[in-house]
Amino acid sequence: MNNLFADRMARTHKSFIREILKVTEDPKVISFAGGLPNPKFFPVEEIADAAGKVLAEDGRNALQYSTTEGYLPLREYIAGRYFSKKGLKVKPDEILITNGSQQGLDLIGKAFLNKGDRVVVERPGYLGALQAFAIYEPVFEPVPLLEDGIDTDSLEETLRTYKTKLFHAAVNFQNPSGITYSKDKRLQLARIFKDHGTVLVEDDPYGELRFTGQDLPSVRSYLEENVILLGSFSKIVAPGLRLGWICAKKDVMEKLIVAKQASDLHSNYLSQRIVFRYLTDHDIDEHIVKIREAYGRQRDWMVSMIEKYFPEEVEFTRPEGGMFLWVTLSEDVSALRLFDLAKKENVAFVPGSAFYVDGGGKNALRLNFSNSDEDEIEEGIKRLARGIERIMGTDD
Amino acid sequence: MNNLFADRMARTHKSFIREILKVTEDPKVISFAGGLPNPKFFPVEEIADAAGKVLAEDGRNALQYSTTEGYLPLREYIAGRYFSKKGLKVKPDEILITNGSQQGLDLIGKAFLNKGDRVVVERPGYLGALQAFAIYEPVFEPVPLLEDGIDTDSLEETLRTYKTKLFHAAVNFQNPSGITYSKDKRLQLARIFKDHGTVLVEDDPYGELRFTGQDLPSVRSYLEENVILLGSFSKIVAPGLRLGWICAKKDVMEKLIVAKQASDLHSNYLSQRIVFRYLTDHDIDEHIVKIREAYGRQRDWMVSMIEKYFPEEVEFTRPEGGMFLWVTLSEDVSALRLFDLAKKENVAFVPGSAFYVDGGGKNALRLNFSNSDEDEIEEGIKRLARGIERIMGTDD
Repeated sequence: MNNLFADRMARTHKSFIREILKVTEDPKVISFAGGLPNPKFFPVEEIADAAGKVLAEDGRNALQYSTTEGYLPLREYIAGRYFSKKGLKVKPDEILITNGSQQGLDLIGKAFLNKGDRVVVERPGYLGALQAFAIYEPVFEPVPLLEDGIDTDSLEETLRTYKTKLFHAAVNFQNPSGITYSKDKRLQLARIFKDHGTVLVEDDPYGELRFTGQDLPSVRSYLEENVILLGSFSKIVAPGLRLGWICAKKDVMEKLIVAKQASDLHSNYLSQRIVFRYLTDHDIDEHIVKIREAYGRQRDWMVSMIEKYFPEEVEFTRPEGGMFLWVTLSEDVSALRLFDLAKKENVAFVPGSAFYVDGGGKNALRLNFSNSDEDEIEEGIKRLARGIERIMGTDD
Repeated sequence: MNNLFADRMARTHKSFIREILKVTEDPKVISFAGGLPNPKFFPVEEIADAAGKVLAEDGRNALQYSTTEGYLPLREYIAGRYFSKKGLKVKPDEILITNGSQQGLDLIGKAFLNKGDRVVVERPGYLGALQAFAIYEPVFEPVPLLEDGIDTDSLEETLRTYKTKLFHAAVNFQNPSGITYSKDKRLQLARIFKDHGTVLVEDDPYGELRFTGQDLPSVRSYLEENVILLGSFSKIVAPGLRLGWICAKKDVMEKLIVAKQASDLHSNYLSQRIVFRYLTDHDIDEHIVKIREAYGRQRDWMVSMIEKYFPEEVEFTRPEGGMFLWVTLSEDVSALRLFDLAKKENVAFVPGSAFYVDGGGKNALRLNFSNSDEDEIEEGIKRLARGIERIMGTDD
């Protein structure tokens, strides 16, 4: 049946990460590979309580078909939180509930991308965005990430060279690099996109998970037009509910709603009701403080273990939040070779090349710190260090 | 920002049905417009019980990210039910959990359709399929539905004339027409598609809701290759959970999984766990009998009211199951004009033209009988009859 598939499927294949995650199902494996939030902090009892109340009080409605846009009180809550946390004035009509941020990316691809359109992505880039957009057959233009965010000179050069539809920017504690855009970079983005016919997709699933430093304004606070925001409950409530959102102005929202309706009519309505009930009955900010403190400790511990065990030449980011740090080995050390060695030692990570559309990242690794305890982190980093030293000590 | 949208969005627009459903939010309106199952039959307490147990016994897992394919025990359940109900031998690996059938249609479009590819659709056709596929910019070739299913002569002629990727067939109690394919038509489809490079999408959301007559074999029971089945829990459990499935052979499944992962990683995992728990703790067949009996009574009542009140010239289908019947007025009576008259009388339905990609259906209406009680059905049909007579009595 192969000759029947759409052209777009020829370029896509099962993700390498997905295959890695299968390896990590073995409980013997210490996994720094996944992007899983720590289930210790899922508000299980509170969700159970909310589910019970929603079903007891309004079960018939909560189980019926609902509107494509999503549950209005939940959209009002999200709009309200944009104002209270970031000072952004957003109308509930500018919020569309999606199945996690991933569907937000898919709907943006659907609404904007013709085959061959240019999309600027960060280098390294968020794999979920690369996969979602790839379905619509664009040409990716990767622009390097510097320590304080995208290389704006290179970005401007790229935008001058190519008519570009979208730029995907994960501004806080980027997956995979852990990098955060400085305030200056955000102001520069606002300047660049103000009069430019390109849409900035400001993707921020981790923004609430800051351990150190100060929250920085959303680019959207400097720029009204040409920005679409993406958000998610996956990292602050729980990912199994698959609930996120897109925030966009009316003209864009109209297209996104059509795309959403064609995709799956609407997101799981019972879960929307449960999450809204959970958010109104409980203090989500108290809950987030707990996650932040724990992930912050795990990050500190992973940083100190890398400092203790890895060879000095190894460089790595010290993210101010989120779930990942990014390790750069010496140029001649292959992360894929390290991956094979580590697999034998029951440690997993994601080799950097997965996050590049143009090769690159061959000597880099993404390490997740949110889902391992201190003993596992120490033991896993020790084993990785042995692997790195073994590769560095050989000539092949 | 209009010049930035993808070409595919130019041909799509907010669905007329969506606009009609807004009218029907007014509780004064008697609505035969929607496609809503009757919430009286949602197993609210059972779902609440299942949710409580899943969260109490395995909450941390049920709220975590999960596999793209879906919860394995639920896929095993679906495969088992295909065997026990239809004698189909299907492996759990051939089942992918989706957000209702609608996402199944979207993923099939993603995996198969290039711009300009031919898709054969029933005339009248299922609107959700038309909307899902339209996103991938195919050329639709509508083939008429006869009383016993698709016009196979016309279908074969179309397949001879055009290289065709997909044929979408809703074989049981089709939405909108209520028509069911006869056994002979099913055998003919198996013959036609056996050696043909076109995929038959056998879409069957209503199959379990048969009031009279005998269950007929799935086309898949005569044809192993070139068939994709779609199913849904929306009509037998509840639609707000947005859970359905695709059943396809391995080569197709691999592509669908990639498309699903790019679309939203996986379907709501908590809801998959809840539905599976509900299905194992309760007798779904007993539950379905209740729905069937009620919808069957409502269908009988609507049929008898149409016979009583509508002018003799009016023709209509007498579906053996499902949720809709299809009314054909005299050729010169405009369903859109009737819609406007009915709106003033607080009755809603969907004008037939919504289900045609080539004009047509101008004197037809789709009536839903699952979601109105007997008094509403009598009163609504009476008001529609007055509207029809008023139009027939005038010359304009």
